[in-house]
Amino acid sequence: MNVNEFDLIERLTAGLPTNPSLVTGPGDDCAVLDLGVPDRLVLFKTDAVVEGVHFTAETPPEKIGHKALARCLSDIAAMAGSPNSVLVTLGLPADFSAERVERIYAGLNALARRYGVAVAGGETTRNPGGFLIAIAALGTVPRPGCVRRSGARPGDAIFVTGELGGSLAGHHLDFEPRLAEATWLRENFPPHAMIDLSDGLAGDLRHLLKASGVGAELHSRSLPIRRAARVAARETPGAKPALLAALTDGEDFELLFTVAAPAAVPLLDGWKAAFPDVRLSCIGKVTAGDKIQLRGPHGPQPFPKHGYVHFA
Amino acid sequence: MNVNEFDLIERLTAGLPTNPSLVTGPGDDCAVLDLGVPDRLVLFKTDAVVEGVHFTAETPPEKIGHKALARCLSDIAAMAGSPNSVLVTLGLPADFSAERVERIYAGLNALARRYGVAVAGGETTRNPGGFLIAIAALGTVPRPGCVRRSGARPGDAIFVTGELGGSLAGHHLDFEPRLAEATWLRENFPPHAMIDLSDGLAGDLRHLLKASGVGAELHSRSLPIRRAARVAARETPGAKPALLAALTDGEDFELLFTVAAPAAVPLLDGWKAAFPDVRLSCIGKVTAGDKIQLRGPHGPQPFPKHGYVHFA
Repeated sequence: MNVNEFDLIERLTAGLPTNPSLVTGPGDDCAVLDLGVPDRLVLFKTDAVVEGVHFTAETPPEKIGHKALARCLSDIAAMAGSPNSVLVTLGLPADFSAERVERIYAGLNALARRYGVAVAGGETTRNPGGFLIAIAALGTVPRPGCVRRSGARPGDAIFVTGELGGSLAGHHLDFEPRLAEATWLRENFPPHAMIDLSDGLAGDLRHLLKASGVGAELHSRSLPIRRAARVAARETPGAKPALLAALTDGEDFELLFTVAAPAAVPLLDGWKAAFPDVRLSCIGKVTAGDKIQLRGPHGPQPFPKHGYVHFA
Repeated sequence: MNVNEFDLIERLTAGLPTNPSLVTGPGDDCAVLDLGVPDRLVLFKTDAVVEGVHFTAETPPEKIGHKALARCLSDIAAMAGSPNSVLVTLGLPADFSAERVERIYAGLNALARRYGVAVAGGETTRNPGGFLIAIAALGTVPRPGCVRRSGARPGDAIFVTGELGGSLAGHHLDFEPRLAEATWLRENFPPHAMIDLSDGLAGDLRHLLKASGVGAELHSRSLPIRRAARVAARETPGAKPALLAALTDGEDFELLFTVAAPAAVPLLDGWKAAFPDVRLSCIGKVTAGDKIQLRGPHGPQPFPKHGYVHFA
């Protein structure tokens, strides 16, 4: 069987039960709830990592715990929110080692402490196929500061943090969720729309543009390509060209966002002072319509149809 | 390897990261958070069901979805709270059928609608060993109404809803979370302590008593034994005696709670009027000290050391 995850999700999310407290349901980085906190909305997110899919038997356990939590925190960053607390659901194979579990928790706890996140409890269960770590995360965001995927406007400048492509060489286990950057953006240059890059720039940009009802023009020379993607393209026979890797590799966990065009230059200046070690790239602009154009040094280039598609 | 889940959990939950909004962390039915809602606390819970552990390939998919959600709602009931919204994380084997996934959701959605719960989104991932459904649930409870495991006092009467034992004959897939009952209790006869029965009365009563620093005296003739447990004891060679099944079988998902002794009789009267179809049994009283005594028709009986212990 060959099911496209997005098709299945589209069917599953049609007509889900809702209630008046649900402000934003499926289809953004987090669900957004109004639970009656006077000045804030509540962000709610789950995510899971699975042995053989997101990590292997050889992955250092601390990095598994780090990755499991960091993925969820990245989604909270993508709404410009702050994480509050998480619950951990652990699926354990029959022959699990307690030491491995404790080291997974050590990696997760270290990251939680860095951002003041409470690990409020969790569950363990057997999972015959291998380790699975599911994280449920709660965060909050000031009511006017919540950034969705749907606010991009024609003329906006499109930015991306960090570098793209080749994440599987190591970045996917080590990345730092862009929480500080997202809060700084919210307070200084409120994005019109934002998403975190988990499935690859090409796919995630499409999600943002579709939610906003707009198109985009990107400049291929502005894309910040990770060194690992360049090295792989040069040295690994059959590897993707580096530009294609930057567009389609998954698990970058960087922020993709748009701001009003006049904010672009002051944003770049302010960013350099605030985050001297984190690259920020203006990669193009939002356009009317629904097309994506990629401009290269010799004219338009084909833009890949999808990022990484699960189960494809 | 033979690891006792409770020992591992005790090690994992020692020294978890916390923050000022965490009111009650690991060790109760839900985590309790103060997110700044003026008159309410927030309840946060996760739970997972796994193919081959909590259901089989033959289980009707709608019942899998019902069970996955009902388990979480039962934990919210145990704090006397009301559920608000859930996220669903689905682990899918390589050869999953989209129809089975949609039917799992149908069962889950039907239960969610009955209690006004929003299904706010979720994630899908591959899980090579089989289906896994993890639910993350948010609820709220009035600040003074939140019932923990730790408030039982010597002299309290001990009550249990419904019937106990033999759940695997069907109840574990069909049970209705005791949300209406818990809200009624909170408003009319606020329990001093409450827990939902997932691991068996013997084990879960110990959890409640330990959290409260008290003991108990139970009357074996007052225990409401489910018919399925009596039938199994009579007809299945080698089956547990029915009383032992009622004490140690898991997955009852009933509420066990204590109230001040003078409230016991008015509570039973009020209950009969409010919930004529749901049995409520006074099964004993809370005592000082830390012993549990089980009194039978011919004097004291041995009280089983544990309920169901996962991974034992």
